[in-house]
Amino acid sequence: MKIPLKPMDERILVKPMVEEEKKIGSIIIPDTAKEKPTIAEVIALGADIERENEKKPKLSEVLKVGDKVLHSKYGGTEIEWEGEKYLILSRSDILAIITK
Amino acid sequence: MKIPLKPMDERILVKPMVEEEKKIGSIIIPDTAKEKPTIAEVIALGADIERENEKKPKLSEVLKVGDKVLHSKYGGTEIEWEGEKYLILSRSDILAIITK
Amino acid sequence: MKIPLKPMDERILVKPMVEEEKKIGSIIIPDTAKEKPTIAEVIALGADIERENEKKPKLSEVLKVGDKVLHSKYGGTEIEWEGEKYLILSRSDILAIITK
Amino acid sequence: MKIPLKPMDERILVKPMVEEEKKIGSIIIPDTAKEKPTIAEVIALGADIERENEKKPKLSEVLKVGDKVLHSKYGGTEIEWEGEKYLILSRSDILAIITK
Amino acid sequence: MKIPLKPMDERILVKPMVEEEKKIGSIIIPDTAKEKPTIAEVIALGADIERENEKKPKLSEVLKVGDKVLHSKYGGTEIEWEGEKYLILSRSDILAIITK
Amino acid sequence: MKIPLKPMDERILVKPMVEEEKKIGSIIIPDTAKEKPTIAEVIALGADIERENEKKPKLSEVLKVGDKVLHSKYGGTEIEWEGEKYLILSRSDILAIITK
Amino acid sequence: MKIPLKPMDERILVKPMVEEEKKIGSIIIPDTAKEKPTIAEVIALGADIERENEKKPKLSEVLKVGDKVLHSKYGGTEIEWEGEKYLILSRSDILAIITK
Repeated sequence: MKIPLKPMDERILVKPMVEEEKKIGSIIIPDTAKEKPTIAEVIALGADIERENEKKPKLSEVLKVGDKVLHSKYGGTEIEWEGEKYLILSRSDILAIITK
Repeated sequence: MKIPLKPMDERILVKPMVEEEKKIGSIIIPDTAKEKPTIAEVIALGADIERENEKKPKLSEVLKVGDKVLHSKYGGTEIEWEGEKYLILSRSDILAIITK
Repeated sequence: MKIPLKPMDERILVKPMVEEEKKIGSIIIPDTAKEKPTIAEVIALGADIERENEKKPKLSEVLKVGDKVLHSKYGGTEIEWEGEKYLILSRSDILAIITK
Repeated sequence: MKIPLKPMDERILVKPMVEEEKKIGSIIIPDTAKEKPTIAEVIALGADIERENEKKPKLSEVLKVGDKVLHSKYGGTEIEWEGEKYLILSRSDILAIITK
Repeated sequence: MKIPLKPMDERILVKPMVEEEKKIGSIIIPDTAKEKPTIAEVIALGADIERENEKKPKLSEVLKVGDKVLHSKYGGTEIEWEGEKYLILSRSDILAIITK
Repeated sequence: MKIPLKPMDERILVKPMVEEEKKIGSIIIPDTAKEKPTIAEVIALGADIERENEKKPKLSEVLKVGDKVLHSKYGGTEIEWEGEKYLILSRSDILAIITK
Repeated sequence: MKIPLKPMDERILVKPMVEEEKKIGSIIIPDTAKEKPTIAEVIALGADIERENEKKPKLSEVLKVGDKVLHSKYGGTEIEWEGEKYLILSRSDILAIITK
């Protein structure tokens, strides 16, 4: 059963990945890193926002439900649903998409 | 009887949900969360504001009276009416809408 | 006799309401509130400002002389005229309009 | 003889009013006020600036030489000319115009 | 011989006026002033910049070489040429033009 | 095998260069430098973003995979993949491109 | 042999001038100056950026390789190439161009 949340505006709902799954993805976050990112799976996307001034691709064109992403560990709001942790992020919290 | 308040500009009047109702919604805010959101019910919406530069959906297209929302616990102004607590939020305080 | 002041630009002149009148409005500001709003009556409005980018309703379309408003207690400048206290607020200081 | 100064851009040259004149205007600034405004007379206006985005009335449409204004006591630069004190203010320092 | 400097963008090169010349101009900066301006002569102007949004007069329409100006004593960069001190200011450092 | 990451929006994935390779490039960062840049190789580019207001060349027109760049050592997020360190930078972190 | 660096976006690569050369230019930076500028020679220019809102001349219209400039000593990133020091500046770090 899916978590019943629609992110507001350009926010993104993600599920942090557990340690073992992070290794499968083969990307490691070094413990010595100044600013450590975190890996998560995209669960739901907010709305597409078009900006007149800054034409970046719409949210739904760059991210899909199921994508694995690296996100900044600062920012984001934690919630829990049926015993699992989730995060609500802003678009700017997402650093990169794992392409494999 | 309805609380006699019209939120100014793009503000939103909400009623924080009590503990028991929060469980029904099955979303739990972990006590260990860095930034804890709070669940509330939308009571009244302010005005729709169109922005030339940033075309996000109008407030009335994304939120309806009766919607349950997750909002940031920072920001918002508390008031009381007939023995019940209410909050006046800004649009950016709202993180997600509970869809079920 | 009316206080002889025309608020500059989008500012608003209000008269804070005394305790007894606040109860009539039946909205109570809890003493435990993090950010306490205050109730006041609109006495005079500044100018309507049209913004190309952010199309919010003009000041004169949302507020009228005589309206009771909730405003943030931060911001605003106090003055006194014929023994009564007044406040000059900015539009963004106004949180909601009491509709009854 | 007039003070020989043309305010730059949208600045305004004012002459602070002495205590006695303030009473004639019948507006009193309470000593207990959080943010105290000050009363002054407009002596010279800077240039009209048109803004594409934010259509507020031009400076010369809202203020005239001889107007009495309430201004924020923060901001403004003091100068002296022939034994009298003057202030150079920004438009945003002006809170209200005394209309009588 | 003229100082061989062209101010970059909308900057302005000025020569601070010595004490005696300040009195001729008959404008005195009180020692008790909160924010003291300084008097200087315009030596060279940077480029005219047109702004779509904020239509202020071009730099060359409001200032001419030889003008005496009041400027904020904060901001500005000091240099020396052939034994004389100069300042490079930004447009916003200039408060007023001495019109006589 | 290529690191499976697509930088989000206008971000850039780079691989910091080891000491020996830095000398080949013949650019040395002095130990006494106030703000030390770092040399890295471009591994993957994010999206091209067009801005209405500020027409700078698109990211893909100024940077190519394989380019060596000088970047500010502040900013950027470190990750590790198959035993090698990488950085995710913003466009504004890149100071110059090594042209040889 | 030229330093193999192309400044990114509107940045500028300069070579600080040694003491003796500074005197030839006859501009002296007083030791007592609050904010001391520094003299440097332009070595390479970044890209021309057109701004819709703020029409300043393009970088290549105001600066040429070989120009001597005064720049703010704050900002700028130091590098070294073949035993010589260089700086990467932003456009706003440049205060004036030495015209002789």
